[in-house]
Amino acid sequence: MGHTIRDIATALGAEAEGNLDLIVTHAAEPAGAGPDALALAMDPRYAEGLARGAARAAMLWQGADWRAMGLQAAIFAPRGRLAMAGLSRIFDPGPEIAPGIHPLTVIDPTAELAEGAAVGPFVTIGRGVRIGPRARIASHVSIAEGAVIGADALILQGARIGARVRIGDRVICHPGAVIGADGFSFVTPEKSGVEEIRETLGERAEIRAQSWVRIHSLGSVSIGDDVEIGANSTIDRGTIRDTSVGSGSKLDNLVHVGHNVQVGRDCLLCGQVGIAGSSRIGDRVVLGGQVGVSDNIFVGDDVVAGGATKIRTNAPAGRVLLGDPAVKMETQIEIQKAMRRLPRMAATVAELQKAVSNKGQSD
Amino acid sequence: MGHTIRDIATALGAEAEGNLDLIVTHAAEPAGAGPDALALAMDPRYAEGLARGAARAAMLWQGADWRAMGLQAAIFAPRGRLAMAGLSRIFDPGPEIAPGIHPLTVIDPTAELAEGAAVGPFVTIGRGVRIGPRARIASHVSIAEGAVIGADALILQGARIGARVRIGDRVICHPGAVIGADGFSFVTPEKSGVEEIRETLGERAEIRAQSWVRIHSLGSVSIGDDVEIGANSTIDRGTIRDTSVGSGSKLDNLVHVGHNVQVGRDCLLCGQVGIAGSSRIGDRVVLGGQVGVSDNIFVGDDVVAGGATKIRTNAPAGRVLLGDPAVKMETQIEIQKAMRRLPRMAATVAELQKAVSNKGQSD
Amino acid sequence: MGHTIRDIATALGAEAEGNLDLIVTHAAEPAGAGPDALALAMDPRYAEGLARGAARAAMLWQGADWRAMGLQAAIFAPRGRLAMAGLSRIFDPGPEIAPGIHPLTVIDPTAELAEGAAVGPFVTIGRGVRIGPRARIASHVSIAEGAVIGADALILQGARIGARVRIGDRVICHPGAVIGADGFSFVTPEKSGVEEIRETLGERAEIRAQSWVRIHSLGSVSIGDDVEIGANSTIDRGTIRDTSVGSGSKLDNLVHVGHNVQVGRDCLLCGQVGIAGSSRIGDRVVLGGQVGVSDNIFVGDDVVAGGATKIRTNAPAGRVLLGDPAVKMETQIEIQKAMRRLPRMAATVAELQKAVSNKGQSD
Repeated sequence: MGHTIRDIATALGAEAEGNLDLIVTHAAEPAGAGPDALALAMDPRYAEGLARGAARAAMLWQGADWRAMGLQAAIFAPRGRLAMAGLSRIFDPGPEIAPGIHPLTVIDPTAELAEGAAVGPFVTIGRGVRIGPRARIASHVSIAEGAVIGADALILQGARIGARVRIGDRVICHPGAVIGADGFSFVTPEKSGVEEIRETLGERAEIRAQSWVRIHSLGSVSIGDDVEIGANSTIDRGTIRDTSVGSGSKLDNLVHVGHNVQVGRDCLLCGQVGIAGSSRIGDRVVLGGQVGVSDNIFVGDDVVAGGATKIRTNAPAGRVLLGDPAVKMETQIEIQKAMRRLPRMAATVAELQKAVSNKGQSD
Repeated sequence: MGHTIRDIATALGAEAEGNLDLIVTHAAEPAGAGPDALALAMDPRYAEGLARGAARAAMLWQGADWRAMGLQAAIFAPRGRLAMAGLSRIFDPGPEIAPGIHPLTVIDPTAELAEGAAVGPFVTIGRGVRIGPRARIASHVSIAEGAVIGADALILQGARIGARVRIGDRVICHPGAVIGADGFSFVTPEKSGVEEIRETLGERAEIRAQSWVRIHSLGSVSIGDDVEIGANSTIDRGTIRDTSVGSGSKLDNLVHVGHNVQVGRDCLLCGQVGIAGSSRIGDRVVLGGQVGVSDNIFVGDDVVAGGATKIRTNAPAGRVLLGDPAVKMETQIEIQKAMRRLPRMAATVAELQKAVSNKGQSD
Repeated sequence: MGHTIRDIATALGAEAEGNLDLIVTHAAEPAGAGPDALALAMDPRYAEGLARGAARAAMLWQGADWRAMGLQAAIFAPRGRLAMAGLSRIFDPGPEIAPGIHPLTVIDPTAELAEGAAVGPFVTIGRGVRIGPRARIASHVSIAEGAVIGADALILQGARIGARVRIGDRVICHPGAVIGADGFSFVTPEKSGVEEIRETLGERAEIRAQSWVRIHSLGSVSIGDDVEIGANSTIDRGTIRDTSVGSGSKLDNLVHVGHNVQVGRDCLLCGQVGIAGSSRIGDRVVLGGQVGVSDNIFVGDDVVAGGATKIRTNAPAGRVLLGDPAVKMETQIEIQKAMRRLPRMAATVAELQKAVSNKGQSD
């Protein structure tokens, strides 16, 4: 399925020059691009690749001399990655999910599927579930009793939607994600060693046998609009109120969001991030891969944490964090420099000690 | 489905006052509680919320003046979180799994399903599997040949139970958990670089090409009674003997337990914990989120490790650990304080060095 | 199913002595071995266990006096773990996947299944998929449109194979793995705070509202031959070109490989490793459990990183790394020693400062 250069430029709101009727069928890296491809070369350093490839059209940096490159048409992208977003949307064929309801499904008669909803094979849909207009449910998905799926949502293969989970419009839930498993919440009949250690920062009176009694999750999970949940990520139910993820937030793969957590709007949680129970994450927070957030803390709006940062205490709005425990990024960079010099500094201190002590004796 | 205040108090072994015949249908946070809810306000700081809500009954802290709060009935909880456990059990409707065996299942004729076992749609059960009385198997689960599932177990959507895995009574296995995948065990025909580095702590004679030969897992996995396995967690088979998890232990989501690992009884492994092959974890061990345990080590009974701690060597019983590498929590807190002051200390040392050197020259 | 000692020794290329016609049915640890077992005692420290067990045959260390141990036959293993690999292959019955195509499957008529391919129940296979000879697809797997699965591949329960993913020969894909979910790639219409922070290492001009626009993944995933992908691991599609994993590489459970990442040949990625987008990993790289690799960096051939190492910058070939940020292992061990002494050193520096300052005054 091809598109003309004109149509692509119009869709991107970008300028184009040359043969605007030229049709391209896909996007490609410059060096490997064939004559039907739109080569992506939004930076002058790709010029050489272009020369090696066989593209007739390219998306280029502002001011590039496309004719000199032997091209027949060019699109100019003022902000390359944003153009990439539009372009990738145009060329993405999307998952093939047949329209209608596949016969090999188990759908409770009380479930309501709105117009245009599609349901793939081996899907189960429980009592009272409501599926929004044009929502697509891929194969092997389970949607438990009382869940609500928004309009145009895309629930991919083998995702697990728990009871009474509410998912907004245009949400994408990637394969294997589990939304609405029970929270990890247990209590011991007597005060546990862990509770004592938390109160005393490391001490406990005595060690006792203890077994864990389960606190069931009566709440569920609420997901806003335009959210993405990555493959094999997990979001647990709340104890009383719902665990929630605000509209526009994106979660990568293998992310864990504990019970009662509230994630704000337009956040990015990268791969393998873990947020422990009852913490609150503000709006527009960006957590790098493998970041950990302790339980019952608050991470303010616009906080950005570098990969593998461990946030153990409340973080004020706008703070840029790095390290374990998380400190301001510039502080952490200073600490890291000092740490690398630490063995040498230890030697210096030992020498100084000797020198000063000798002086004391020689005085 | 409602419960009287009397019945709830009796079930919790708690005291109640006021109109004990009042019926409540669910639990709620104080501020959002309607007239049919039991408001949860086990601490005086929730008093204000109660005033804003419309609850007629509440679970309150000891000695609270419920009449003055405009309530008609009150339950008193001496230990709030424990009461929460009982209460949440009363109000949790549990997953809706229809009784009996769904027709859209593939069950080997040699499998034995005890009385009261329920099997949802799209489930596969292999040769010689034994399912205990009243066990419930939700949709999309696969149970491979020779596995044994205990009485009253709950195996949730899409969980994967491998061949010959044994699961105890009352175990809850959350969606997407994989119990009994092959261990990650490979060997090179010649001694590998990694083996050399382990022996020499960082040196290796020369770098050689090497490819990995698979050590198959002949053992399986044994899970005790009353265990919970979190969503998308993985527990690998043992090489010869079984990997094992002791009774009463609870694993959160996305936890990885390597081959041959032995986890003791009544442990808590929080989200994203990873335990490498052949390590042994004692009883009542608590590992915070993202903790890592190296392979072939021993973590003693009652060890508690804070979030993201990396346990790289044997840990004696009762030790409270934090940091990477794990040290006693109080030591780690001292280290962290010193680290934050490290850049300043480096400057001080430089000044001292200068001062002492000047003195030496001026003497 | 038993094997004679002769056959086992021949298969392993090992020497054997005693009654070579003795038949053993399985391998066992020495102390628990019955008369039908081959006891595994490749090290003298297992001699005592052998004495307690009832084995008649054992795999022993070179030079062991098997007659004195009361055995009837012995196999001698020059390199124990390698012998273990061969032995485990002999005794592993493998997963029971019935030959042929199960009727409860949904297979697109355009899909091509080569001779000897087996497909379990509740599998979906999309348009134009090609499955290689003797490949085995276990229950609940989904294989999306255009994917290619190599000869003798083993795709286990509930694995998700995305559109146009190519998987080589003899690949093993463990339960719940997701290969070919969309990459985690988003862009803001204006330059985002995160971009600014990256450029300035921690500063940003002002905090602005921003929402994320999706960059779709037009590439797919290419997996070489003889690769293993662990349970619930995830490998995302590339943006334009494919994300790739080279032949012979092995990924453990819960590993995350981001979009555009290139993993070389014969690598080992242990449990919960995360590799952020567009990074390149060389050949024969070994990453310990919970290692993190930042985006857009290069990790050279033969790099070995200890568990929980965070690789934030390019790593030269052959480097042995440890710590966060990753440094040479020997440097990290020095840093760790110095860190443990840090609180004491801080006290020493304070005393020195006092001493030097007093001296200055008393001079």
